[in-house]
Parts: sequence; structure tokens; C-alpha cells
Amino acid sequence: MSIFDPFLSLKDLRERTITLPGPDEKAADAAREREPQLTKPPGSLGRLEQISEWLASWQGRHPPLLERLCVRVFAGNHGVVARGVSAYPAEVTVQMVGNFEVGGAAINQLCKTAGAELEIEALDLDRPTADFSKGAAMVEADFVSAFNTGVASLPTNSDLLCIGEMGIGNTTSAAAICHALYGGTAKDWTGPGTGINGAALDAKANVVGEAVALHQDICGDGLEVLRCLGGREMAAMAGAIIAARLDRVPVLIDGYVASAAAAALDATIPRALDHCLAAHVSAEPAHRMLLEKLGKTALLDFGMRLGEGSGAALAIPLIRAAQACHTGMATFAEAGVSDKD
Amino acid sequence: MSIFDPFLSLKDLRERTITLPGPDEKAADAAREREPQLTKPPGSLGRLEQISEWLASWQGRHPPLLERLCVRVFAGNHGVVARGVSAYPAEVTVQMVGNFEVGGAAINQLCKTAGAELEIEALDLDRPTADFSKGAAMVEADFVSAFNTGVASLPTNSDLLCIGEMGIGNTTSAAAICHALYGGTAKDWTGPGTGINGAALDAKANVVGEAVALHQDICGDGLEVLRCLGGREMAAMAGAIIAARLDRVPVLIDGYVASAAAAALDATIPRALDHCLAAHVSAEPAHRMLLEKLGKTALLDFGMRLGEGSGAALAIPLIRAAQACHTGMATFAEAGVSDKD
Repeated sequence: MSIFDPFLSLKDLRERTITLPGPDEKAADAAREREPQLTKPPGSLGRLEQISEWLASWQGRHPPLLERLCVRVFAGNHGVVARGVSAYPAEVTVQMVGNFEVGGAAINQLCKTAGAELEIEALDLDRPTADFSKGAAMVEADFVSAFNTGVASLPTNSDLLCIGEMGIGNTTSAAAICHALYGGTAKDWTGPGTGINGAALDAKANVVGEAVALHQDICGDGLEVLRCLGGREMAAMAGAIIAARLDRVPVLIDGYVASAAAAALDATIPRALDHCLAAHVSAEPAHRMLLEKLGKTALLDFGMRLGEGSGAALAIPLIRAAQACHTGMATFAEAGVSDKD
Repeated sequence: MSIFDPFLSLKDLRERTITLPGPDEKAADAAREREPQLTKPPGSLGRLEQISEWLASWQGRHPPLLERLCVRVFAGNHGVVARGVSAYPAEVTVQMVGNFEVGGAAINQLCKTAGAELEIEALDLDRPTADFSKGAAMVEADFVSAFNTGVASLPTNSDLLCIGEMGIGNTTSAAAICHALYGGTAKDWTGPGTGINGAALDAKANVVGEAVALHQDICGDGLEVLRCLGGREMAAMAGAIIAARLDRVPVLIDGYVASAAAAALDATIPRALDHCLAAHVSAEPAHRMLLEKLGKTALLDFGMRLGEGSGAALAIPLIRAAQACHTGMATFAEAGVSDKD
């Protein structure tokens, strides 16, 4: 069975992802062996050195390559928008997908400057998920189908995958997922999203609290949390993360919503996110807390809160820089530079 | 007199830099007017939005352009190396300049991935500055000459300038400058540099303390601090920062040593660094404290401590991203996307 064969059910998904491939220790060793020979004091490139090793480990080759860099933005609509949780109307989701397609959005500019290929996967935008404060967001078939869309979206021969999303209402969904997975209060996990505050923000937190109370029986099961409280674009991001792992493609996760989708995997499958880096920490206040739960240190802290994969695409040049230093620098021996002491 | 006419003396330098041009308010206004029309929630690109406005203000035009991006690395040798303050021998400075010239160093790879032009200015490497723990590092003529080298290094028509350095021993110099300018203890400002620790680190702090005690009469004067405790590469970086200001070129400052050179200007000329961003905060522990003194928030926190302009070059794509979003995104009206509420 190919890794890209669609999952047939939640049970099939669980069975086929219960163990995931680990890092390539041989490639990691090769990276660790080369790094101290390069013409710089050991460790002086800091995080860039760690990134090179991560790239090699998860691409499963040394030297790591960065030829084909792909950004996938998943879009979905959310029934919970009926509860007035967003500053923008639901039709903005499809309008922004149109904007992505003609190249007018932030993510288009960011992909262009980063030299990355952008594709948009719009998931049944005319069929919003059910309002999860009233029932499960998705039935099993819808959830598995959205997950499979994410799996199938992985391009062949990609060297790095960035995942992002667009979906009016989806920070409410992210907050509900986090509250379900990690407890605390609904307020802890609820933020302004596209820009609500005051009473509207309180009301959003109430919706999150109600939803998690309604679904409390499944809070111990990450995939069920994602089905009941997530959106199609979030199920698809989870699918893309899994497909990337199986195909040895390192992943940059974008902001709060993408991280919440990833968190559902983390809660279900041991070490599911080891091949992922958090590209940035968002201005959405709970994102910092979520990254702590995931044990991730973001590459960037730029106060962004746009989604669209924008933070992930912004971080691509940092990955390129790491790879370029690791593979392109001269060694002390090659350069005739005196080593330490 | 052209802005690039060499300064004739410290007095001439002081007189011609006592006031510096401010931001272009018209360009800044144009940036502030465009930003909220772009297809994203207001403020959702966070720091990228601030960078666009900063670029416009300091380039003095809207839209801001990024066609010619230049990195200048200044190299100097330091008499204080005789005191055993570095993990590497002084000949590494000239060896690394050779490595820069054949493309083998980190900065070469970083400039290539960022699409930036790199030039190296080696300042009298065979004539180290005097040991500043025994006397002034430079006589006035040497200091002004090094400063002028930095001024003259500014390329014509550059849209962004990154400054960096190479100089075995120069974190000792940076520590002495900071200790002289900001007080505290010598230890507060002294760090491992290329990688010393334990007794060698204590000895380095002692050298810094002795030097500042020796030169205490001039600690209130930033330019004198730079002359007595700095190095030629640091005087040149200060010159490049001033030339960029006069020629309306925004600047990315690299790590601890570059920031210490900038601090000497900041202590002398009001708002001298308003056209500069701190590209990164270095692993050299005092750098974080120094950036606080300068009122700068670094773009990146990657635990780097290499110098060479590496942190500044690494940040270039972030500036490109800001400019690309600001200039390339569609407005709500153009894209037919519904605005907030």
C-alpha cells in the first residue's frame, strides 16, 4: 500500500500512523561531523547549525538539499461563524482564495521572495463544517476525506513543506482544540483572531468553553478532537504533516491554527512532530503557550497573526541560509585558516 | 562639500555630524496610508509592517525599493590580543579575509542566498591598534582615517546596507566600549567571544576593567571611547553608519561588536541610529543588554556569535519580505475582498 493511498476510515488512519519513521541517524551524524570543520568557531552559527542537522535527519540525506520548496494553504469554512466569533464575514474565505489565485495576498509575495511554490487547496467552501458548539464539526467521512486531501496535496520531490490556512472562524476552532487537549480555561486559549476584542472576545471564549464542555468525552483523543472541534483545513494540515513525515519532507508549521492542527497529531501519535519546526510565534496570545506544550521554539517572533502560511513562508530563507552555510562553507583545512588554540 | 569628502579631524567629524537628517515624513505617511488598505486584518503582518514604514522613511521614498543590497565587512587587528583575550591567534583575521575573498566563509553563503553584494575592507591588518589596556588604541589620525574608510565604503545607489566585522580580539574591544559608555562592571560586558571561558574569561574581563580605568577621563565622549578602546574596523563601521544616514540608506547592524561601534555614535550624536535596525541578538551575553541600552529589538534571536555581518545578512530576506508585501499585495478594493465588519 502506497503511503499516499487514501485512508479509508479513522480506524485505518490510526492503524497506519501508529508508528512513524524516525530521523535518519546516519545523515544526522554526517551533519554533526561536518559542522565543526567549517571555518567558524564551533557553535557560532547557533540555530543555523541545528537547522542543518534537522534538515539532514528528516530529509534522510547528507548534504541536505533545498531545490523544491512548497507552500500549501488549506482553506475551509466554519459553521461556528454563525456565533459571531469573527470580525470578518464568512465570504472572506472564498474571496481570499480568489486573491491567492490572482497573486494579491501576503502569501503570494512571501512565496515569490522565498522562491517557493504556492498551491491552494480549498475544501468544500460552500459546505461549512457544522457549528461545533452544537455538535461535531465533521462526521467521520468528512474528516477522513479532508485529511486525505492534505495527504494528497504533498508534491513529489519536495525538499521542504510549509503549511498554512485560511478560514474565517478558525482561531475559534484552534482555541477549542487547545482547550480540549490541554485544559486550562477557555479564555486562556482564546484570542482576538482577525481582530475582535472586549465583549465580542468574551463571547468567543464562551463559545469555546461551551463547545469543549459539549465534547468533553472525546478530549483525550487528539484525532477525535480534530474531527469534533476542527475544520476541514485543519484536518488537511494534519494530513499534510503525516504525508510529509512518511515521504521524508521536513515541515515548517505556520501560526496558531496550523499549530493546533499539529497538536491534535502530537496528542495521538508519539513524536509525530519531530520533523516539524515552528516557523514563528504569532501575536495570537495563546500560540506561545501552545508552542511550549509542543516543546517547540519558534524561529521568528514578528507579532504576525495573518495565517495563510505567511509565517512559515517568511522563515524559508532562514532554512535556506542554514543549508547554504552547512554545504557551501570551506573547512579549516580547505581554507588554510588556523583552528582554535 | 560632498557628504563623502573625508573628515579632516575629530573636530571636523564632530562638526559635520552634529545634526543628521531625520526620517522622511512624507514617505512614512504614504506607507502608513497604504498599509491598512492591503488585504489582511490591520496590523496582522506585525513587524513586517513596521519594517516597510522604516524602509520608506529612511530611504526617503514610497514605495521603498530593494534592488541593490550591500554587505560590508570591515577587518582590523588588535594590539590587545597580546593579553591572551582570544581563543584564536591574531593571524586568523588575515586568513579569514582570504577566506572571504575566495567565497568560503559563512558570510559568502549568506550573501549569495540573500542576493546581496559583499565587499571586504581590510584595514591595515599588518598594523594592529595599540594595546588599549596600555594606552589609546588609535591616535586621532588613525581613527579618522579608519572612520573615513567606512564612509568611503558606502556603495552608490544602495538600498540597504549591512555592516559586519572580523577582528580577532574585538569582543574585548566591544566590552571595553560598553563598559566605558554604560558603566556597570567589566564582567557584565565581557563574554566568551570566539569561545573562551573559565580563568581565561576572567582574565579577559580584567583586561577590560583595567582598560576602562586607564581611559576613564574620556568615558563621557563616545567618539573618544571609540578611538581609545575601539579598533579600526569599529571606527570604519561607525563611518559607514554615518555615510548611510547622510545618503538615505537604511542599515542593518550585525552583532555585539558592530553594535558597540554603533553605541559610540549613539552616545555622541542624538538619534544617530534611528535609520538602523538590530538584525539579531547574539549569543554573546552582553549583546542583549547593549540592545536594550540602544532601544533596539532584534529581528532574529538565533544564538549566533560569528560576526562577519552574518546576522545582518541573515535578516535581509525579512526586509525583502516586508517590502514585497507592502508593495505587491492587492488592496481590499482591487481584490474585491470584504473589509472588516
